Amino acid sequence: MVPHFTTALTGPLLALERRFLENVPAIEQWLRGEWQEHTPPFYASVDLRNAGFKLAPVDTNLFPGGFNNLNPAFLPLCVQAAQSAVEKLCPEAKRLLLVPENHTRNQFYLQNVAQLAAILRMTGLHVRIGSLLPEIEQPTPIALPDGHELLLEPLRRLGAESRRLGLDGFDPCAVLLNNDLSAGVPALLENLHEQWVLPPLHAGWHTRRKSRHFTAYREVAHAFAAELGIDPWLIDPEFGICGQVDFHARTGEECLASNVDMVLTRIRAKYREYGIEAKPFVIVKADAGTYGMGIMTVHDASEVKALNRRQRNKMAVGKEGLQVTEVIIQEGVPTVETVDEGSAEPVVYMIDRYVVGGFYRVNASRGIDENLNAPGMHFKPLAFETGCSLPDADQGPDAPPNRFYAYGVVARLALLAASLELERSAPPPSADGL
Amino acid sequence: MVPHFTTALTGPLLALERRFLENVPAIEQWLRGEWQEHTPPFYASVDLRNAGFKLAPVDTNLFPGGFNNLNPAFLPLCVQAAQSAVEKLCPEAKRLLLVPENHTRNQFYLQNVAQLAAILRMTGLHVRIGSLLPEIEQPTPIALPDGHELLLEPLRRLGAESRRLGLDGFDPCAVLLNNDLSAGVPALLENLHEQWVLPPLHAGWHTRRKSRHFTAYREVAHAFAAELGIDPWLIDPEFGICGQVDFHARTGEECLASNVDMVLTRIRAKYREYGIEAKPFVIVKADAGTYGMGIMTVHDASEVKALNRRQRNKMAVGKEGLQVTEVIIQEGVPTVETVDEGSAEPVVYMIDRYVVGGFYRVNASRGIDENLNAPGMHFKPLAFETGCSLPDADQGPDAPPNRFYAYGVVARLALLAASLELERSAPPPSADGL
Repeated sequence: MVPHFTTALTGPLLALERRFLENVPAIEQWLRGEWQEHTPPFYASVDLRNAGFKLAPVDTNLFPGGFNNLNPAFLPLCVQAAQSAVEKLCPEAKRLLLVPENHTRNQFYLQNVAQLAAILRMTGLHVRIGSLLPEIEQPTPIALPDGHELLLEPLRRLGAESRRLGLDGFDPCAVLLNNDLSAGVPALLENLHEQWVLPPLHAGWHTRRKSRHFTAYREVAHAFAAELGIDPWLIDPEFGICGQVDFHARTGEECLASNVDMVLTRIRAKYREYGIEAKPFVIVKADAGTYGMGIMTVHDASEVKALNRRQRNKMAVGKEGLQVTEVIIQEGVPTVETVDEGSAEPVVYMIDRYVVGGFYRVNASRGIDENLNAPGMHFKPLAFETGCSLPDADQGPDAPPNRFYAYGVVARLALLAASLELERSAPPPSADGL
Repeated sequence: MVPHFTTALTGPLLALERRFLENVPAIEQWLRGEWQEHTPPFYASVDLRNAGFKLAPVDTNLFPGGFNNLNPAFLPLCVQAAQSAVEKLCPEAKRLLLVPENHTRNQFYLQNVAQLAAILRMTGLHVRIGSLLPEIEQPTPIALPDGHELLLEPLRRLGAESRRLGLDGFDPCAVLLNNDLSAGVPALLENLHEQWVLPPLHAGWHTRRKSRHFTAYREVAHAFAAELGIDPWLIDPEFGICGQVDFHARTGEECLASNVDMVLTRIRAKYREYGIEAKPFVIVKADAGTYGMGIMTVHDASEVKALNRRQRNKMAVGKEGLQVTEVIIQEGVPTVETVDEGSAEPVVYMIDRYVVGGFYRVNASRGIDENLNAPGMHFKPLAFETGCSLPDADQGPDAPPNRFYAYGVVARLALLAASLELERSAPPPSADGL
C-alpha cells in the first residue's frame, strides 16, 4: 500500500532543508500569520524541482488532477482538510457539483475525479458530476479500471432566470471546478450569482498567467527568505516574459532571445556565486497553459532563433489547440532526484491551507533538465511515503520526513502566491459571481 | 508500523453501523451545524463500548493520556487538527506551556506527554513542559524508553503582579493542561488573566461530573437520533446518580440500591424490546473521577447493600486519594470486541472537532462486563488500523473503515456533549481566566 523508494532521496544534502528544519516554529508561525490575511485556494498542486542547491516551484495548478496518485494512507488527511475547507465555505453545504475536464477517455484523469468525489463525499456532501461535454445528453456511466464507475451527467441551468447551475434533480450550493477553463469560460458557467464557484472563474487559464503567479511568488519568497535569513534565489526561479510571440510568423524572436539571455546571465551569476558546476538552462513555455504542452528546454539564446518548423509548431499550440503568443522564460532547475533511473520531480497536493500528500512524477525517458509532465501521461507517479508535516530534528535534513517537510513548505509558499495572484486578478465585486 | 487485527472485528453485524453508513452526508452536515454553535474542547478521548446491539460512550476524558498509543500513521492527522485548533485559539501563538500529570515514573504516560509535545511542535509552536511537582525545582530530564528524554521544568508565575504562568525564560501565550485537576486547582494555576488556559480550569475533575456530561450527552444523542430516525437508546447509556454516599459509614446505600434497580429495570425493558439475551448489569463509579478507580460491576441491587469491607474501601477512594461521595450508576454496555481472547473497548482520540485516531484497550484478565481501564495500566493498547473518516459504502457495515467511522461518529457526539457541559459549567465571565 505504501510504496517505498530510496533512490529519490539520494540527492546532495541540502543546506536549505537544514535551515527549514532548524526554523520549523518560525516557518509555521509565519505561514499562520499569512493565512490570516489571505484566503487559500480550495485546492492546488505544485510541481517542484529540487536541484540540491535550490528548491523551487515551477508550476502551480489550481485544478489539480492527480488525487488518485496520492498515497492511500493520506486519504484521512484529505478528508480532514476538505472538511475544513467546506466548513469555511458554507457550513450548511449539502450538495456539491463537480465539473471535470472533458477527458472521457483518460482513465488516469477519471480516477482523479472519482477520488476527488470520494474525498468530498466523506466530508458529508452529496457530490454529483456535471459534464461540459455536449455529447453527454443524459446520465452516462463511465467504467473505471478499479471496477467502479463514474456517472457523468449533463449540466443544466436551474431556477428563475436560470441563475443557477445544476443537474436534473440536483440543485447544488457549490460548484467545484476541476476544469482549468483553458478554452475560456463556457456559457454554462457564466453569470452564476447564487452559488459558490470554486476556484473562482478567474483562476482558469483563460485568465491566469504563469508570470503573474511567479511575480506574486517572488514577493512571497522574498518576504519568507527575509524571515529566515536566506537568499531568496534558493527558492525562487528567475523568469522573464514575452507578450507578443508568434512562432509561426517568427515574430517576437528577439524578445525571446533577449529574455533567454537575461535569465541565463542571472543564473550564471548565481551559479558562480555558489560555485555550482551545472550548466544553466531555461524553460520556455506558454504563459497561460498547462498539461506540459508547448514547453522547450533552452541552453543558449541562439537556440530560439534557429527553431525548425517542427519545433515552432510544437511551441505554437497549447492546450485545446489554442495559439500561444505569451511566453514565460523560466530558470531551469535541474532535478537531482531519480527513481529507478528516471528523472523525478515532486508534486505536492494541498487542500485549503493544508498539505495533504504528494507524489513523484517519474519520467525515465527525460533528462534532468527537461519538463517531466509530458503529454500523454508518460510519467509514472510514485506516492510520497510519509507526510509533509512531520519534520524530525533527530534525523538528517535529507531524511524523507524532513525532505518532504521542505517540499511542503515551498509548496505552501506557492499556494500563498496563488492566493495573492487570485486576489489581484479578481474582477470587481459587482461583476463577480457572488 | 500498522498493527493488523481481525479478532476485534468479529462482533455481530450492527444495524446501527449500516444506518450510519447510509447517512454519512446527513451525519456530517448535522455535526458541521453543531460546531457552528458550539466550541469543541481542545482535545478529548472517548471510551466506547460496542455491544453489537448498542454502541455508546462510557467515559469522556478532556485530558487524554494515550497519544502514544495511536497508530503512527495518524500523526499527520493529529498535526493538521492541532494546526486548526491553534489557529482558532490564537494565530500569533508562539510559545505553549504543557502542564502534565504528576506521574514521573509512569513511562506510558510520559510517552504520551512526549508525543503530545511533538505534535504541538510540528504545528510550529515552541513547547516546553512545566511540572506542578514541588520536587521539580530545576529543569529535570526524564529518560524515555525510546531513548529520548523529556525535560520537566519548574513552573513560575511571571510578569507584573505575577499574573502569568511560565518557566524561567519562557513566557507562553497559552497553557495546555494534560492534568485533570482531580485534587483541585493548584494555586499556581489560579488567576491567570492574560493567557489562554486549555482546556479551561472548570474542565478538571474537581468541577466536572460524569452525570453532567451524560445529561448533556443524552440531549445530543436524542437530537442526533431524531435526525437519523433511530432509537436514542442505541447510542445512549442509561444512568442514575446518588449524591450522598459514604461507603465507609454505609450511608446512601438505599439511594444506590434504588438507582441500581431503576437502571437495571430500564435496561431489562430495552433488552426485552430488542430480544437481547444478555444479562443486564450496571457500572457504579465515582461521579467525579477517572483512572478506572472506584469502579464496580453490579448485576443486582442487593449487591450494593452487601459490600464487604474490602469492596467498600475500594469504592470509597478515587484518584489522588480523594473520598468518593457522589456516584453515577451507569448502564453496563457489554463489549463484543475481543483481541487475542482479551476483552477490548475502543478509545477514540479527537483534537478540535476532528477524529485523529484511536486504539483498542485490551484487557485479557477482564470480562466483557467489566471496566477495562484498570489501575496500573494492565491493558494493552492496539492502535486502530485505519482512520475514522473513511466510510466505504462498498464494504459491509462491519468492515474496519465502517466500524471505525461509527466509532468516530459516536465519539464526536460525546465531544459535542463535552462542549455543552463546559458551556454550562463555565464560571461567569468576570471570574474566568480570560
